[in-house]
Amino acid sequence: MKKVVTAQQVAKHAGVSPTTVSFVMNNVEKANISEATRQKVLNAAADLGYVPHALAKSLAKGRSNNIGLFLIQPHEQIFADPYIPNIITGIRNAIQVDQFRILVEQVRSPQDTETMLTMLKSGEIAGAIVTHNIWGQDNIKSLYGLPIVSLVPIDDDNMYFVAINQNEGVKKLVDHIIDLKRMPIGVITYAPLDGDNIKSRLMTFRKRLAQSDVSLDQKNIVEGAYHPESGYAAMELLLTKCPDISVVYCMNDMMAVGALAYLNQNGIGVPDDIALVGYDDIRVSAYLNPPLTTVRAPEITLGESAGELLLTLINNTPPDRNHIYLPTELIIRQSCGSKI
Amino acid sequence: MKKVVTAQQVAKHAGVSPTTVSFVMNNVEKANISEATRQKVLNAAADLGYVPHALAKSLAKGRSNNIGLFLIQPHEQIFADPYIPNIITGIRNAIQVDQFRILVEQVRSPQDTETMLTMLKSGEIAGAIVTHNIWGQDNIKSLYGLPIVSLVPIDDDNMYFVAINQNEGVKKLVDHIIDLKRMPIGVITYAPLDGDNIKSRLMTFRKRLAQSDVSLDQKNIVEGAYHPESGYAAMELLLTKCPDISVVYCMNDMMAVGALAYLNQNGIGVPDDIALVGYDDIRVSAYLNPPLTTVRAPEITLGESAGELLLTLINNTPPDRNHIYLPTELIIRQSCGSKI
Repeated sequence: MKKVVTAQQVAKHAGVSPTTVSFVMNNVEKANISEATRQKVLNAAADLGYVPHALAKSLAKGRSNNIGLFLIQPHEQIFADPYIPNIITGIRNAIQVDQFRILVEQVRSPQDTETMLTMLKSGEIAGAIVTHNIWGQDNIKSLYGLPIVSLVPIDDDNMYFVAINQNEGVKKLVDHIIDLKRMPIGVITYAPLDGDNIKSRLMTFRKRLAQSDVSLDQKNIVEGAYHPESGYAAMELLLTKCPDISVVYCMNDMMAVGALAYLNQNGIGVPDDIALVGYDDIRVSAYLNPPLTTVRAPEITLGESAGELLLTLINNTPPDRNHIYLPTELIIRQSCGSKI
Repeated sequence: MKKVVTAQQVAKHAGVSPTTVSFVMNNVEKANISEATRQKVLNAAADLGYVPHALAKSLAKGRSNNIGLFLIQPHEQIFADPYIPNIITGIRNAIQVDQFRILVEQVRSPQDTETMLTMLKSGEIAGAIVTHNIWGQDNIKSLYGLPIVSLVPIDDDNMYFVAINQNEGVKKLVDHIIDLKRMPIGVITYAPLDGDNIKSRLMTFRKRLAQSDVSLDQKNIVEGAYHPESGYAAMELLLTKCPDISVVYCMNDMMAVGALAYLNQNGIGVPDDIALVGYDDIRVSAYLNPPLTTVRAPEITLGESAGELLLTLINNTPPDRNHIYLPTELIIRQSCGSKI
């Protein structure tokens, strides 16, 4: 590999001191360098291909150009659906005006947040966006006052978040399912991998049904694992447990893809025999056979809003609001059998 | 926002000089600091929550902990299919043992590669992985000797690449299509967004057909835009141009999802009326109706191998090979109508 050219080498080549090189390269006006010397240094730098050290420049500026995106999910799940790519796209839209870059970092356990704190406090990153809240009420105090934006709600006025209003999305979906007047209802959920988010969506689902006196049998809640394979297997299991199931809510579209494949391959008509609804509106959902009724979560906007909020924190501007909720949209297609 | 604690503040708190703080925090043995002083500094650092500056530490070490992933694609395409997420997953698998992090950066034009060179030469990143080759034969010389790994082939012994052997994949697919004995053949391609890669795949496709004296009418090559919407529209257009088309090759699975939806919605049987084959084997392809015949490209392995090669370059170890090709796999499912 090529060696990095140093300021010392430029100084030697130009016949000046390293300090003079530093003054010229950093445009230090008060240094009072003659134009002839300045040209000598610039020529030497050009000859040798010298680039001032980025780390040294960041250090002088006192701020990193990087923001950290901390993914708090099991490895296999991170890119299993387009959630994280969408978030990255959104964050990039927001931060590119300020020429920030995204450092992607995975957090495997709550203990790993030490890494994030060290990176923030040491100035390796200017701010952080975290996909989940894995801190207990005591731990979270250590994060107060730091430029951190969570992508899920945190019930603490000292913390910042931009989150999709999942409960509102689930409520819209439940109300739609109730309107379909189909019973019994089945749910394909996934293990509490991203913990509170999924648990709270399932709780909202149950509560909203209960409010309308619609029952949901515990045995009709089957656990998948967020990808199509698991949706396929979960649908098979659900039909064993409850052969007359009439409407199934898959907690993400990826599992709905698998559930639909199982039904199609076994000659079970969708929506005539079983109505199917998903959650996320991934890119393929409108092109399934039949197209999938689902809830569209504004994931790119989520990334954008989080990036914007983080920039205000990094720039020490007080944000308008510490807590921002983004609305969802119910997308009705053929799979639920509703007249559209 | 909290202020970052400085070494000066720790020095004042401990009643020692900033240099002593630096010696203690960096474990400089030859500094000959007494144990009592060392403890005073460590206690002061703990009291104030001082973390040595990461940039300063990187500077001392002379190497960045970051590697840059340069995405050379139009913005909308980057996360339209799982290619980039898969690459990131693979790179992370390879580099996490050395505690490197990934900096994701988009390159919008060949001119933008200046940014990459500056980041490399200034030590902001320790190495780079680039998704495409956008350098002409003259420009590429400026990259010689730098720790850069391309994810597409570069016909230059001075450059490093790990690439999927797309031509081999296309050949397997063409041979399979010829075996199906269905004519005429249609192709849904996409604009030369990632340039050479797609152009060369189409050229290989044509050549291989020609070698077997199978014709491909130019009018039966229709341009999509890599996402399902475009596949849907392209299939409609292709049927207008050639109503008796019998087998269609979609140059990615995402477009095949849309093409299949068009056929399903218009009562055109797949594979009975039209056989369909894709390319990529994305997560949903096995769960379409019917499941899609396609070519599986080992994208996660691609990221892993590129990460491993880059680490050898960063560590100045001569790699076994400068150019690595990874094989593809033909995945035969129902959509092509082949007996399986």
